[in-house]
Amino acid sequence: MARRKDYFVGIDLGGTSLRAMVVDPGYRILGSEKVPTPTREKARGTIVKIGDVVEEALRSAGVRRADVAVVSVGAPGAIDVRRAIVKQAPNLGWANVRLGAELRRRLLVPVLVDNDVNVGMMGEHALGAGRGAKNLVGIFVGTGIGGAILISGRLFEGASGGAGEIGHTVLMVNGPLCRCGHRGCAEALASRTAMERDVRAAIQSGRKSVVLKIMKKKHHTRMTSSVIQAALKKKDKVMQEVLRRAQFYLGILAANAVNLLDPERVIIGGGIAGRLKEEFVGPIRETAYQYLLHAGPDSGVKILPGKLGDDAGPLGAIVLARQRLGL
Amino acid sequence: MARRKDYFVGIDLGGTSLRAMVVDPGYRILGSEKVPTPTREKARGTIVKIGDVVEEALRSAGVRRADVAVVSVGAPGAIDVRRAIVKQAPNLGWANVRLGAELRRRLLVPVLVDNDVNVGMMGEHALGAGRGAKNLVGIFVGTGIGGAILISGRLFEGASGGAGEIGHTVLMVNGPLCRCGHRGCAEALASRTAMERDVRAAIQSGRKSVVLKIMKKKHHTRMTSSVIQAALKKKDKVMQEVLRRAQFYLGILAANAVNLLDPERVIIGGGIAGRLKEEFVGPIRETAYQYLLHAGPDSGVKILPGKLGDDAGPLGAIVLARQRLGL
Repeated sequence: MARRKDYFVGIDLGGTSLRAMVVDPGYRILGSEKVPTPTREKARGTIVKIGDVVEEALRSAGVRRADVAVVSVGAPGAIDVRRAIVKQAPNLGWANVRLGAELRRRLLVPVLVDNDVNVGMMGEHALGAGRGAKNLVGIFVGTGIGGAILISGRLFEGASGGAGEIGHTVLMVNGPLCRCGHRGCAEALASRTAMERDVRAAIQSGRKSVVLKIMKKKHHTRMTSSVIQAALKKKDKVMQEVLRRAQFYLGILAANAVNLLDPERVIIGGGIAGRLKEEFVGPIRETAYQYLLHAGPDSGVKILPGKLGDDAGPLGAIVLARQRLGL
Repeated sequence: MARRKDYFVGIDLGGTSLRAMVVDPGYRILGSEKVPTPTREKARGTIVKIGDVVEEALRSAGVRRADVAVVSVGAPGAIDVRRAIVKQAPNLGWANVRLGAELRRRLLVPVLVDNDVNVGMMGEHALGAGRGAKNLVGIFVGTGIGGAILISGRLFEGASGGAGEIGHTVLMVNGPLCRCGHRGCAEALASRTAMERDVRAAIQSGRKSVVLKIMKKKHHTRMTSSVIQAALKKKDKVMQEVLRRAQFYLGILAANAVNLLDPERVIIGGGIAGRLKEEFVGPIRETAYQYLLHAGPDSGVKILPGKLGDDAGPLGAIVLARQRLGL
């Protein structure tokens, strides 16, 4: 049995859902809790909700708050890691939110905050598809497309902490508009949001698709990974085509990164990859190998689906916090 | 006066020209020699030529061969640095050429070989536009587009020595064919070769341009940097438009790299940048700032022309050799 203060809470604060997870020192998941991310609340309301979700996860794990060493949050956007401040999180509508301090005040436990993609990468590196590799590129496909780079076993953050924005690689000059304001970014071509846009456009142009029906049935207002999976199961032609196109762009994106950075592995993470695994990553890999400059499969680079799915975030947040605090 | 064995020879073996340079320990250039790279010779013939050019440079420098500590070559393509072998150099038509061993046998001086873009980057870092920076991205525009990455002051070579192939970043899915066999690579959009293709196409479609006339006058069969400069001086509309388009693509390429790697500086090197300096880099910077995710000019990243022009290669080859040998 673990000693006091030997439990850890990891949180994934996503644009769509908010998850908390309680683990023991061996990363055994003792309890977890998932709710939709509040969208109409102000930051303060969301932080109250995060506190509630942590309490709920602890209850289901049978762990007392006093026995928690640290709560570690992965949040989307630009993070001031040292001060645990969310500087900019357009998905949440946040700017300069003192997430660490406020959550700590509620929970009375130390709180660390880092970027959601960085923590997902650390999770896959320590416990998932990146184990044993020293040079990794992570491409996380969800509402947006995030990226993270590991060099010599450490997160590469760049000169000013802004490295990894692979989703805003322009792949198609003058392509579709991205929410960043530019055109032709990978995110505007291959994120779940881009796929939903394309599916809706196809339906509006008269194509038949079960996607909207599935969304209704699941009470989802967005085309989530589970909706995509269900539509594919029904062999929905529109969904198949839209997915195939996104995979083509993701293959080129992966090849661009490999040509530039020559990593040992590329990990395709996020919810869709977690659900569809090889069905998602296979065609991405195929395109990527075609676009590699040095060889193809023989180049030695492996392109793999993340192993942890949605757990990569909360688990990775704990990995990073323990590294930082030496726990 | 420098002591015996205190002189260094740097060689830039380019697709177009072959240069040798003799320097003293303070990188004072004592002599240099430049000839067109033999194109019809086999590798052995070219190596004989390299030996001759070195002898010529030494003569003009007044330095004896016995006083040379090392000859260091930057060669285009994939290099096995440890064994001084050119593994693949499509520009030269070389495969598995033991350049180091053969040149050493001729000159009786130690010979090192590295990739031409890597040595150019080291030159700019040690002596040019990259001085003092620790995280750099280099984009070298010439016959092709090469790239090099410096992280924490050291060349980043990736997991298998293949990092830096920024020229084969796909910027335009299904764009023009690149000599690598893929479509829409930066090299196929913005290299000197791509610009020449576009100028020739414009002329064939009936546009007026002085470019071919200038090439004839200079006895150049290719649209070299000096031809581009001369055509711009004559306010050639076709040249202006083609250059502007290449600069736009290079701006996006630079932004993609900054969004991914967050370096302190991006250095735009190579012959055209060396000649046109700010006239070349200004519009590239403008586009890049537009496409940066975090801020623009305020992001802190500097986008600069290389300071050394064509000297970056030979000087950088010497910098790298001295680092490797501790001289």
